[in-house]
Order: sequence, then structure tokens, then C-alpha cells
Amino acid sequence: MNKIKDIFKKSLTTKDNNTLEESSRRDFLKNSATLSVSAIAATSILGPVKASADEKQIVNEVEWGTKLGDKTTKYRYGIPSPYEHNNVRRNDPLLSSGDEYATVTMCPIHESEGIITPNGLFFTRNHGGTAHIDPNEFRLMIHGKVKKEIVLTLDELKKYPCETRTYFIECPANGSTDWRAPQYNNLQFLKGMMSCASWTGVMLKTVLEDLGLEDDAVWMLAEGSDNAGNPRTIPVEKALDDAMLVWGQNGEALRPEQGYPLRLLVPGWEGNLNTKWLKRLEFSDKPWHSKEETSKYTMLQKSGKAIRYFWINEVNSVITKPCPEKPWANIKIGDLVEIEGIAWSGQGTIKHVDITFDGGDNWVEASLKGLVLPKAWTRFSYMYRWEGKPLLLSSRATDDLNNTQPTIDQETSKQGVESVYHRNGNVTWEVTTKGEVNNVHIRKHKA
Amino acid sequence: MNKIKDIFKKSLTTKDNNTLEESSRRDFLKNSATLSVSAIAATSILGPVKASADEKQIVNEVEWGTKLGDKTTKYRYGIPSPYEHNNVRRNDPLLSSGDEYATVTMCPIHESEGIITPNGLFFTRNHGGTAHIDPNEFRLMIHGKVKKEIVLTLDELKKYPCETRTYFIECPANGSTDWRAPQYNNLQFLKGMMSCASWTGVMLKTVLEDLGLEDDAVWMLAEGSDNAGNPRTIPVEKALDDAMLVWGQNGEALRPEQGYPLRLLVPGWEGNLNTKWLKRLEFSDKPWHSKEETSKYTMLQKSGKAIRYFWINEVNSVITKPCPEKPWANIKIGDLVEIEGIAWSGQGTIKHVDITFDGGDNWVEASLKGLVLPKAWTRFSYMYRWEGKPLLLSSRATDDLNNTQPTIDQETSKQGVESVYHRNGNVTWEVTTKGEVNNVHIRKHKA
Repeated sequence: MNKIKDIFKKSLTTKDNNTLEESSRRDFLKNSATLSVSAIAATSILGPVKASADEKQIVNEVEWGTKLGDKTTKYRYGIPSPYEHNNVRRNDPLLSSGDEYATVTMCPIHESEGIITPNGLFFTRNHGGTAHIDPNEFRLMIHGKVKKEIVLTLDELKKYPCETRTYFIECPANGSTDWRAPQYNNLQFLKGMMSCASWTGVMLKTVLEDLGLEDDAVWMLAEGSDNAGNPRTIPVEKALDDAMLVWGQNGEALRPEQGYPLRLLVPGWEGNLNTKWLKRLEFSDKPWHSKEETSKYTMLQKSGKAIRYFWINEVNSVITKPCPEKPWANIKIGDLVEIEGIAWSGQGTIKHVDITFDGGDNWVEASLKGLVLPKAWTRFSYMYRWEGKPLLLSSRATDDLNNTQPTIDQETSKQGVESVYHRNGNVTWEVTTKGEVNNVHIRKHKA
Repeated sequence: MNKIKDIFKKSLTTKDNNTLEESSRRDFLKNSATLSVSAIAATSILGPVKASADEKQIVNEVEWGTKLGDKTTKYRYGIPSPYEHNNVRRNDPLLSSGDEYATVTMCPIHESEGIITPNGLFFTRNHGGTAHIDPNEFRLMIHGKVKKEIVLTLDELKKYPCETRTYFIECPANGSTDWRAPQYNNLQFLKGMMSCASWTGVMLKTVLEDLGLEDDAVWMLAEGSDNAGNPRTIPVEKALDDAMLVWGQNGEALRPEQGYPLRLLVPGWEGNLNTKWLKRLEFSDKPWHSKEETSKYTMLQKSGKAIRYFWINEVNSVITKPCPEKPWANIKIGDLVEIEGIAWSGQGTIKHVDITFDGGDNWVEASLKGLVLPKAWTRFSYMYRWEGKPLLLSSRATDDLNNTQPTIDQETSKQGVESVYHRNGNVTWEVTTKGEVNNVHIRKHKA
């Protein structure tokens, strides 16, 4: 026994978790309303749960322990448990209008964990259906004001050194149904036009430095090879900053509905700029004024004028637990519960997130949990003892450039209510005494 | 135009990538054999690729651009492109021995990107097939030397605050076929008994502090509820360090073959300790000496004696590009190519990785790329101009506790060649003048 323990002691010379995770754990302890993990333990999150002899017996005699499972070789490529059949993308009933090609499927963000969206659940927004491309037939053309125009195969492109980075993609219309009044009592439909993944590809900057841009190349057109094409103008500054040509998503090839075999990634900017099934990049001294940036994807202002070329998805956040699909119905009064959510900013890194329980009169700081990366989903968390009172629960994120989410009032007083895009006013959940959760508009949050 | 640029300038007040990624990019520049990105560009990775009028025409007239794609609504849960049908898990022909229940499927690590393995490709090692569990019927029992024994439903367990962390899991038999001589000319079969994912669940420490351990509880038994059970003894020190009870993998529920709905996670330790379909945790003052830790999973030494309770997967690395499945057949002599690989350590964080081109006479330092996290896969990279000479290409990883991979000689002189487990001697690829890549043993690497 002592010898075994010696071996253990010797082999357990492990270093603790890295500073990133460690610091966020410290934040968790510090910020959770002064409740340390020990304090949480002392109050027992579980309540009066116990183990009777009968219950122990049940555990030891489960039916699936009495027979062989499926053959290990059955799934060369695995699929979710059939019990998870509800954790799927869903067609937005208001936005789809019966069109099954030019429409959107919403990510089930109420079921999401951490900051990675699995590829099977990453939201989609297509203008002409999902193109199916033979990667051997695929070509990327880079032309216009470049010193060396090229037509590349995928294998040729993959000769460049690759990078893997975690970024969210969000449709600028995410939350668009809610500009005037709540339309959905449902988080998936309210904010599910976004997801976050780990992307692999080459920095566009590396390719462009290889080809050589002309001095007056200040605009880039990105166009897809699908029937819709979705041509969009992007400043060369962004192309040379952090844009990527990506072929990998979460460790494997892009899925067809994400642009297989190649998409443009423009971190933090409107989802439609992240061109799928990429066909060509053209460089010019003038922008293109394509349909997708004149009749669509403009920001209608209160004045009646519209802003064109407004690309960045602003700082934003939403509470995912609780939410209308995950109420507190099973939480007993007096229980300690974890309030959790997602914050993100297309301009930088989430710095802090505040939470209010009373519709904005008072705010407390949540803790940031796990990895905190620029232009990526960031998880926030707050341990809260619910005493059964009704709540108006909301979050407010701030990024490292000190951009903060506006209240709905601030947002609509500037924008009016004719806007479709770039909704980032606070989302508020009303929690009833029964623990039900409803989407409501609180217009006048205090600062 | 100027106005548009002004809007852009204003809205582009983005902060660059975070220090983590930024520092690794700097490392990349610094370490890549003094080749900066500009230098790479100046030498052109692409070579004589150009765009003829014909080629441009082809790009503009692709067949899939002339018709609608699949309905966007077709996939509520997405699947890979049919062209990716070769990127699948494979049954190891030497280890499976015709048994399709108690066997292993290997992860296609030669196709992997970044540090996340998608759930459909995460390796599996089962002893009695894949159990299928109704999460509503699932119970977890925690008993023995705890002050409050409990039987928990999954919903009750999920009341605890959750964490998401990225860790590899590796079967200690990974590489086991190669102890005496190379058996496979294939990376997937040589080192595919590992994967890396982002796991979500509760820290076991939080649960145990809630229940209260008896003072003499120094050992924990973890047992699965499947027919094999796979009972294993784990020191309480590890349970209270970084062990987790996880229900989420890469943003969604565990897959059935990964232990749905709950598995134990013991970061950096032998894969079989990460008990799937977890049924119970029992606490005691003595270890259990189960079959899986007496007849199996022991380390046979040269002396004829075996080490029991040897849990940690040691520092390790392998070059994934090139590899036997991805030779340099399409690389022309004089081309700049990226050599890439995976390093990992069950004891800490990867600190640096060295690469040799001549079987160990000379070493250069590779750059670490992307996120560098403890007990997680870490990518390394080196830009190299191949002049067509044959190479003996190998990597050697060091972690932040200064553990370094041994040479094969060092490993076998200590262990002999009767071992099955914990192979971490250098893997060497022979690159032929034709760019073919073969698995060879170089026994006498120099320090």
C-alpha cells in the first residue's frame, strides 16, 4: 500500500492547469457573490438527495449492463445518441417564409456547452441552397490588382503554412425579429443565427504577400461559386489583418453547408462576408456596390438613410441558462443555481459581463469561464440563490475596447425600429415565481 | 469613397489577436529557420502557378454554380461531404483480432487539424461494445467512505456549476504494435489511439466537497454501467485535483461510444481510467486490485516484474505532415514545405519541440502553433526547404516539467521489448528521394 502510494506520489508530479484556466477559476471564486466552492459545498447544491438501499440496487442492475452493446466497429463516423434528437438546427418560422433554399437554420444555442459548436449544429444561412463541390474540381481564382494572378487547386493552396483559430460567425440579422417587440419565447430562434468554431486554413495575408498586391488595391471582392455567389466588398485592410482562407472546421474538413471545400473567414464581421464555396477574390481601387451591399445588409437609420459597408458584429451577450427552453421549473426555492451565458464581440476580447436581476436597477459582475479569446464566444457564469421571487434577468457585455452593449432604448433611439441588422441591445428574461422564463423587452435599463 | 473609407477606419478599431495566439505567431516567425512570412512570400511557396484565360473561364463556369444546391432545411444535424468518406475511424487489424465488441477504432490523426477532434472521429476502445443508455434511466452512485452517500439523476448532477476544458485522451497501448519493430506504414494505426476534445462537466472536487469525504478515503473506484464495467482504482489526490464528471464533448452531449450520458475524465492519465457510461464512484482506504489493473494495464519491465498503478501518459509527439499517408510526392525539389505535428504530455504543458532531419545528429526547434494548453494536444510547425535528399525525420517534445521523450534505445534499455503500454520513444519517418514516407526505427538518437 505504501509502495503504491509512493509510486503515485512520484508519478503525480503534474503541474496544475494553465494560467488561463487557473485565472478564470480564481475569477469564478472571487466573483460568485463571495461564494467560494467550499461555501457552495457547505450549503449543498444537491439538497436532500440521498441513496436508499433500493436506489443502490437499481444502479447495480441496469438493463444495459446485462448484455453486449453495439459493435465498436459500427460507426466509422459517429453520430449523436438517439435520445439527443431534439438538439438540432431548426428553420426559423418567421424568416424562412416557406423557402427551403434561401433560408436559415438556427443553432440550438440553449443546448450548447463551452465555446465550440459541433459542426453538425453550426447555423446555416444560404441564398441558393447547399452547393456540393468535388474538391478535385475546385479552383480558387485571385485576380485584378495583384502582381501575379492565379488559379489554384485546393492542394496548391494547402502548401501554405496553416493556422487554427477560434472565432464566432454571426449573421447580422441575428435577433432581427425582436426589433419592435418580442416575437419568440425561444432562445434558439431569438439568437441562434450564430455559432463558434475552431477554423484551420492559411492567413490571407500570407497568400497576398506571396502574390503581391498593387499599390492601389484597397478593396477586395469575395464571391462564392454557388448559384447565389453572394459577392461582397471587403477592405484590403481587413484582408491583411486577420482574414483567413479556411478548409478545416473543428478538426475536419468544412461541411458542405459551411462552404466545403473552402470559405473566406473575416473574423468578427457579418456572417455573409465569410463567403462559402469561395470562387474568387478580386482586387480593385473601387468598391463593387453589389446587390448584397446595396439592397441588402445595409443599416437603416431613424433618419431614413441607411449605412452601407457596416461590417462589424458589435459587442453582445445573452443568458443561456436559464432561458425559455430551460426554465427553473425543477429548481426549488432557496437552491443555488448557476446562471450562464455567452458573450461575444467582433471588435475584440470580452473584458467583463454584468448581470442584473431587477431589469437594470442593479448590476453585479459575472465571472468569465474557460478560454477567453478575441472574436470568440466567451462563457460567463454567476452563482445565485433563487428565493422564488420574480426576476428580470439580463446581461451586459463589455469588450477590451470598452464597447458596451446598449439598452434597447439607447439602441432604438439611435436606430429607430426599422432596422433589420446588428441588434445588440440587452436581452431580458422574465423569470416567474413558477420558474418559467419569458422573453420581454425592458427598454430603460439604467447605466 | 472617402466617406466609406472613413466609416471603415472608424469601425476597424479592432484589437489584434490575443496574446496567446499572437505570441505563438511571433514564435512561428522567430523559429521558422529565420524565414519570416515576408521571406516566405519572396520565395513563393506556390512556385510557377499562374492563371491562363482558359483557367479563369473554368472557374467562372463551374457546374455547381448553374443550379440550386440542396435544400438548406435538409440537414437538421449535418454530416461530412461524401468526398470525405476516407476520413473515418478504422479498426486496427492487429489489435482487433476479429472481435468487434472488445476492440479499438483508431482516429485518423493524419487528417486532423488544430487540437480539436470532431466527435464523429474521436477514437474508441471498448471492452463490451457501445452501451446505449436512456439518460432518464441513468443514475450515478457515489458511496463508500463519503459522509453522504448519494444516487443522482443526470439532471441533479447538472445543478452543479459546469466547466469546459480541453484535454487529450490516449489509450496507454497507443503505439504498442511498434515496440519491437515497425508494424505499420501508417500513422492512423501507429498513433491513432488518441484524440483531443473540449469537455464540459463538473469538477469532481466540487461534488466531493459537497458530499464530504471520510478522512481515510484515499482511493476511489470508478466503474462503468456497461457490461464490461472496467473497474479502475484512482487515487483521491487525482480526484480532487483536476478530475471531472463530463456530460458534454465539443459543445454537445457525449456520443454513445464516448460514454453517453456521463464519463469520468482524468486529464492526462491512461484512457481506460476515463470511465465511460459511469455507474459509480466508491471511496475506500485500500485500492481494489481489479482485473483491469492486475492482469491488464500493468507495465512489464525488463526485469520481468511489472509496475502496477502507472497512470500517466508521458510526454510524446509525432509528425503528422508528412506521414506515410501524406507523403511529399507532390512537393517539388526546392519547395518550401510546412512540417507539422502533435505534441502532448499527461504531466503538464508542452514547452518546446525539436525536430531532426538526420535521424538525431542535429536538432532544430519547431514553433508551437495556436493554443498551448496543459494536457492537451499542442501543434508544432517548422518551415523547411526540401532539396530532394532522403531524410530521417523525427520530433522530440519537452514539457514544462522538463520531461523529454526518450530515444527508442533509452526506452527499450529500461523497459525491454515485452511492454505493451506507454510507448513514447521517438517516431521516425524516412523520407525517400521520391518523397515517400516510411515508418522506421532509429534506435540511437543523440541527445
